[in-house]
Amino acid sequence: MTREIEDTQAKAEVLSQALSYIRRFTGKRVLIKVGGELFENEAAAKSLASDLSFLRTVGVDVVLVHGGGPQISKAMKQFRKEPVFVKGQRQTDSETLDLTAMVLLGDINRRIVSLLNVAGARSIGLSGADDSMLLVEQLDPELGFVGTVREVNTDPIDRLLEYDYIPVIAGMGVDRSGQLYNVNADSVAGKIAVAIGAEKYILLTNVPGLYETFGEEDSLISEIDSHGLIRLISTNKLSEGMIPKVESILSALKGGVKDAHILDGRMVHSVLLEIFTPEGIGTMVKNG
Amino acid sequence: MTREIEDTQAKAEVLSQALSYIRRFTGKRVLIKVGGELFENEAAAKSLASDLSFLRTVGVDVVLVHGGGPQISKAMKQFRKEPVFVKGQRQTDSETLDLTAMVLLGDINRRIVSLLNVAGARSIGLSGADDSMLLVEQLDPELGFVGTVREVNTDPIDRLLEYDYIPVIAGMGVDRSGQLYNVNADSVAGKIAVAIGAEKYILLTNVPGLYETFGEEDSLISEIDSHGLIRLISTNKLSEGMIPKVESILSALKGGVKDAHILDGRMVHSVLLEIFTPEGIGTMVKNG
Amino acid sequence: MTREIEDTQAKAEVLSQALSYIRRFTGKRVLIKVGGELFENEAAAKSLASDLSFLRTVGVDVVLVHGGGPQISKAMKQFRKEPVFVKGQRQTDSETLDLTAMVLLGDINRRIVSLLNVAGARSIGLSGADDSMLLVEQLDPELGFVGTVREVNTDPIDRLLEYDYIPVIAGMGVDRSGQLYNVNADSVAGKIAVAIGAEKYILLTNVPGLYETFGEEDSLISEIDSHGLIRLISTNKLSEGMIPKVESILSALKGGVKDAHILDGRMVHSVLLEIFTPEGIGTMVKNG
Amino acid sequence: MTREIEDTQAKAEVLSQALSYIRRFTGKRVLIKVGGELFENEAAAKSLASDLSFLRTVGVDVVLVHGGGPQISKAMKQFRKEPVFVKGQRQTDSETLDLTAMVLLGDINRRIVSLLNVAGARSIGLSGADDSMLLVEQLDPELGFVGTVREVNTDPIDRLLEYDYIPVIAGMGVDRSGQLYNVNADSVAGKIAVAIGAEKYILLTNVPGLYETFGEEDSLISEIDSHGLIRLISTNKLSEGMIPKVESILSALKGGVKDAHILDGRMVHSVLLEIFTPEGIGTMVKNG
Amino acid sequence: MTREIEDTQAKAEVLSQALSYIRRFTGKRVLIKVGGELFENEAAAKSLASDLSFLRTVGVDVVLVHGGGPQISKAMKQFRKEPVFVKGQRQTDSETLDLTAMVLLGDINRRIVSLLNVAGARSIGLSGADDSMLLVEQLDPELGFVGTVREVNTDPIDRLLEYDYIPVIAGMGVDRSGQLYNVNADSVAGKIAVAIGAEKYILLTNVPGLYETFGEEDSLISEIDSHGLIRLISTNKLSEGMIPKVESILSALKGGVKDAHILDGRMVHSVLLEIFTPEGIGTMVKNG
Amino acid sequence: MTREIEDTQAKAEVLSQALSYIRRFTGKRVLIKVGGELFENEAAAKSLASDLSFLRTVGVDVVLVHGGGPQISKAMKQFRKEPVFVKGQRQTDSETLDLTAMVLLGDINRRIVSLLNVAGARSIGLSGADDSMLLVEQLDPELGFVGTVREVNTDPIDRLLEYDYIPVIAGMGVDRSGQLYNVNADSVAGKIAVAIGAEKYILLTNVPGLYETFGEEDSLISEIDSHGLIRLISTNKLSEGMIPKVESILSALKGGVKDAHILDGRMVHSVLLEIFTPEGIGTMVKNG
Repeated sequence: MTREIEDTQAKAEVLSQALSYIRRFTGKRVLIKVGGELFENEAAAKSLASDLSFLRTVGVDVVLVHGGGPQISKAMKQFRKEPVFVKGQRQTDSETLDLTAMVLLGDINRRIVSLLNVAGARSIGLSGADDSMLLVEQLDPELGFVGTVREVNTDPIDRLLEYDYIPVIAGMGVDRSGQLYNVNADSVAGKIAVAIGAEKYILLTNVPGLYETFGEEDSLISEIDSHGLIRLISTNKLSEGMIPKVESILSALKGGVKDAHILDGRMVHSVLLEIFTPEGIGTMVKNG
Repeated sequence: MTREIEDTQAKAEVLSQALSYIRRFTGKRVLIKVGGELFENEAAAKSLASDLSFLRTVGVDVVLVHGGGPQISKAMKQFRKEPVFVKGQRQTDSETLDLTAMVLLGDINRRIVSLLNVAGARSIGLSGADDSMLLVEQLDPELGFVGTVREVNTDPIDRLLEYDYIPVIAGMGVDRSGQLYNVNADSVAGKIAVAIGAEKYILLTNVPGLYETFGEEDSLISEIDSHGLIRLISTNKLSEGMIPKVESILSALKGGVKDAHILDGRMVHSVLLEIFTPEGIGTMVKNG
Repeated sequence: MTREIEDTQAKAEVLSQALSYIRRFTGKRVLIKVGGELFENEAAAKSLASDLSFLRTVGVDVVLVHGGGPQISKAMKQFRKEPVFVKGQRQTDSETLDLTAMVLLGDINRRIVSLLNVAGARSIGLSGADDSMLLVEQLDPELGFVGTVREVNTDPIDRLLEYDYIPVIAGMGVDRSGQLYNVNADSVAGKIAVAIGAEKYILLTNVPGLYETFGEEDSLISEIDSHGLIRLISTNKLSEGMIPKVESILSALKGGVKDAHILDGRMVHSVLLEIFTPEGIGTMVKNG
Repeated sequence: MTREIEDTQAKAEVLSQALSYIRRFTGKRVLIKVGGELFENEAAAKSLASDLSFLRTVGVDVVLVHGGGPQISKAMKQFRKEPVFVKGQRQTDSETLDLTAMVLLGDINRRIVSLLNVAGARSIGLSGADDSMLLVEQLDPELGFVGTVREVNTDPIDRLLEYDYIPVIAGMGVDRSGQLYNVNADSVAGKIAVAIGAEKYILLTNVPGLYETFGEEDSLISEIDSHGLIRLISTNKLSEGMIPKVESILSALKGGVKDAHILDGRMVHSVLLEIFTPEGIGTMVKNG
Repeated sequence: MTREIEDTQAKAEVLSQALSYIRRFTGKRVLIKVGGELFENEAAAKSLASDLSFLRTVGVDVVLVHGGGPQISKAMKQFRKEPVFVKGQRQTDSETLDLTAMVLLGDINRRIVSLLNVAGARSIGLSGADDSMLLVEQLDPELGFVGTVREVNTDPIDRLLEYDYIPVIAGMGVDRSGQLYNVNADSVAGKIAVAIGAEKYILLTNVPGLYETFGEEDSLISEIDSHGLIRLISTNKLSEGMIPKVESILSALKGGVKDAHILDGRMVHSVLLEIFTPEGIGTMVKNG
Repeated sequence: MTREIEDTQAKAEVLSQALSYIRRFTGKRVLIKVGGELFENEAAAKSLASDLSFLRTVGVDVVLVHGGGPQISKAMKQFRKEPVFVKGQRQTDSETLDLTAMVLLGDINRRIVSLLNVAGARSIGLSGADDSMLLVEQLDPELGFVGTVREVNTDPIDRLLEYDYIPVIAGMGVDRSGQLYNVNADSVAGKIAVAIGAEKYILLTNVPGLYETFGEEDSLISEIDSHGLIRLISTNKLSEGMIPKVESILSALKGGVKDAHILDGRMVHSVLLEIFTPEGIGTMVKNG
């Protein structure tokens, strides 16, 4: 047997090993949340598209929810509009809202859709306004058009999954009068994960996962349960940006999602590795 | 009879008269093209939403294609970007393309979707990038990212109609590499009308219809056939803006659409009146 | 704007107003009971056929139950057979029963079916003997072949509605041995309304509705609830002929029908006006 | 072997023998035409109902077409109306037409339906007016309301067969205006047999079959083909009453029906014996 | 009427009588257990195949479970292998197991399948290894590869019945590791009868039925209920070979099977006679 | 890179690379032929079961056809029966036929079925006798019960694939009388591949593939087309055992199969590597 054959056998082993994972998730729903920053990194974006295409091909129902913070900030700068923060959240006046919608729906969403289509997965973009999918109410009058999700109408998602599409969802919602609102994408993702009965909820971030001690690379947590996560929050061991993500995970698990993952989206094929190989590459949060 | 139909019997007559028209279009597909300017007029926009909701309720499969010229120009002005015209068409560089996408998808499209949802029709927004629905190629290198439709993938439209949604489609397309292009909305509308097998193609404009003699109000043509239309073009009797509309109509009729209409979208309930009453209020172009 | 356009707009308003009513009843079942006398009046009969065709076209599942008292009496006269009344009900011997069946099924039923077919609604005639749909037992031995409904087999109705037919049902039933019985059509209508889960039960009569004081035209009741109706009966304020109708309404409401209407069937388009316009033209009995 | 098959083994043989015939007709359509006179004979009527119920139970799609000559004549006598014959056919004025409809639909049809229901086969009565099933035109102005079938709309039959009903059809039709016409039942049966794609067409009469020499019992023909049948007609060897039956058979065979049978309906279980045993008891006409 | 006609009428009566039995079992499931010895008798085997084909043709869902005791013993003799009995059961070492599988699956099962196919019923052979249909565990280590059924996976049976196949099942099972086991066929039959919701469970043996007094032909029991059967066992009135059969019947009845029959499979058409004629030819055990 | 792919990224690459192959074969049918000798090698057998399970999980419709030469010869020896060869083929008398059936169906087939079930693919065993799937006729009277396939009834295969089963088929057939015949498994495989419309036909043998010069390892052919294959035969460059395999391939390609492969079944994961990696490990025969 030559070296070539040996490598070949190793390849076969990888596929063979993946089999049990594929079997476990075929026919199940997986919700993936990704921030806007990932799409500034072309390699990461393409690798994500390829991974989601893989998931879809082996029969997993994939739903993608995306944000777009960096792109919105950039667009505001171009319009010479200064971001105002109230209670730590971006105040959203009518002009900011319009700009947000234009960036999320008219730019990021359609780019992701095209990336997925080119990677061979058929995808369609949605926002919470489509079929009034995300019914929201105002979070706080001082914040302007910032909403919080009250009801998720899963009809558009169910219909698209039925035809093997990957729905790509921008985190905006509408109230009963049809008024648009901006909504935090992590929170939207958690709510949708519960509403569609997702088996798994994956949060792609720009850190490798959660740390026992913030700042110490060695303390990366590879597995934790919801109780552990609550303890972690209560001891202030999380970075500020991680708080809404962790809260969205806790609410998803409470709502019945089996497990959640925090992965570094910048790592090539992070989703594939997390789901289809025995090795962990981020933090997995088990329900319990 | 006074301006308000006082008599309940008269009301019953109106409904009863509408019956044969309802019956004729139930289960059929109607494509409606509307320009961006209509949505600057709130009354017209709401009346259109109500009319489409009526069509949907009585079983007509409605597909809406929209443009957004005025809004794009306004956005360019805000960005202090000067429109450049080559051979009578807007040159579309990368920046203009991005702006166009943001305005069409992130602003106009989602507004129409919300208007329809509030009017009681369930609707979902689409662009040619969704499921690579509109496959285009570049029209002319000098024009930049301006495309012309080569293939229409009707899957997303068919799926949405199957669940009684009104698909709202922005006139942009993609090439095989996923690159976005701007496409003339009249031309998109005509191509989609043929691809989905529409029975009727309605163009909402801001004039009452076609005129025998341009400028003479009395010469409004209430019915014409495709031969007549070709004659009209050859004798230069049409305004310049009407040319692409008329060409899109001719190509739709050639592709098998039964008849086309040019209506004044600013007139309240123009669609309802054109389809469900015996009186004509615009120009109808019969196939033949 | 000319006078013509004004009237045109008024037409559009009527259609537009009807939309919410159409939407409310699409996919719902409505049972209409009509006496034989209506079919002596050609205009009323044609208008009813047109109204039911409208209902069917906009997606309402229509079921028609009819009687035939005047026609039966006329046929008996032709046969020189004297009607005998026992306890206020027509005694039905074997010969009378045969004559009743011949008039109801062989004459009135097939005429209604043809009227509806010509009006564009597809319809099929049924009697309680078809698939033993109305299982009855003898009401009183002295009355002979007069039955009261014990069970309704809704299979034939369900099957026909499934294919958008209007079932036209004559009020006769059979016992387990297959023996035919005559049954009061109001009572049959109420029982079927409950069995098929009708949303609405409309009784077409030859009076405008119920009166607070019988004989005083001004006292027409436009809306009442079941408690009010019971009070009305107990104070002897109803004409004798109205009693079985009112009882059939009360039993239908008790069985879960949402609301009932007593309308003057001789009024042209009475059904359309009652269902699709905000104005009331008869007496509506609400459940409650 | 005595008249009652005593031996259980012999019983088993009969069932076992029937197997290949059952298998041949399961899922196939069989049209049976029966004259009105059969229903004057209670034993024959009940035996027919039992046989059709057997056919239906083993999966044969049964359609019954019936006439009613004797009963119509009797009713006319009761009404002191003298039959008038023109060119050998009964002249049908408006009064005669009404009487015919009353007898066929209101008496015979509903009696057959009840007989079948009691015998355990679910059945529904139809006439050519239901869903305008039999579209006719006038045969000859002198004959009045006597029609000939132009088109058969098989929808009502198809729908009922789909739910394992036996449609029982009275031979009357309507023109496009909804006007009723009387139609010869043999002719209706032949037309329907072709329209529904019947495998077999069985004519129940009151003679044992066709004779080589009319009047000679020994000359009963047990099998013949269409050529033979045409020869038989051309040599005037058929009774006058047999002519329309034989013509209806020829037209059915020409339209694709596999074979036709002329049986004596008065013979108990004649249908069962003809279809499910190797012995012939009437005349079978093969296509060819 | 001649003798021929008389016999013919008698035939019709047999068919007509069978109708109510056919109707009762159409769409129901019947499990039939047959021992290997029946297939040593060609006439009995062919008659059984013909009877099952009849059942299938009239819409009964038939499942056949078979043993093969005599054939296994014969094969062991050919291999000069002496049967060893422990606690009254055949000890099954690895070699015996292989031989059993070869005889049951490779010989008897495929012969029955062919017999049925030739008799016009479409059939497919199965063993408990197919789709791990019969999950067993070892009965007793001393007995070797003798198993007892723990779970029945009815998927393969349901799928085949759906397409009107007759599944022919050999009484062998597998444990979770895929190891084959021999299982008593009576016990397998009773378990499957319950698992598939059989209406009737028929045991074909080589005796006419159960006897009140074993050995006295006159004391054949034609009907008994489960209580009676338990009494019979407790009073030692059954032959030793009958015990596992009777236990399998009791467990089937307990599991919800409506009734069970013990018939003499050597009697030609025994199944047909038992199910489709009023006469009893064996012992019927009613549930209760 | 070492023999074990250590790097997780490399793993991800393998999966990612496999994606396009998975996508190409999802929903397609692949027929795999394997000789009996493979099941004498436990590692090869388990690896094959795992590979087929992988194929099934990613949506490929797998059908397995197997032979059993070595096992049949061994069984004959045990029975002290000397194989007789006529014209190079094994003469099959009645006793040899029975033994063949017992070995193929009662031993090898059920073992493969269990291997697949344990590997997580649901499988059911079939022979050509099931639903008379392989209709054969005698090849040559001198050879006895050796048949050649005349017709393939794909119903049982289609039904099982519909429910995601892997049908495992032993190469035996029946004639119209139900008589069993032995059939060459290579020939059966090629015929079934064509009948079921297989995309790919894989022959697992115990050599690495075809050689340009028989005996010279270096001359292994990695790709050839049917013309090349015919040339190879004509120049006597194939071993004798390879001839029926190559003929079965040529007939499969002629019948429309897209491509065929000759692989060494003893090599672990040979099927997976051949289908899901870019490297070739045997000989691929392209259609053309």
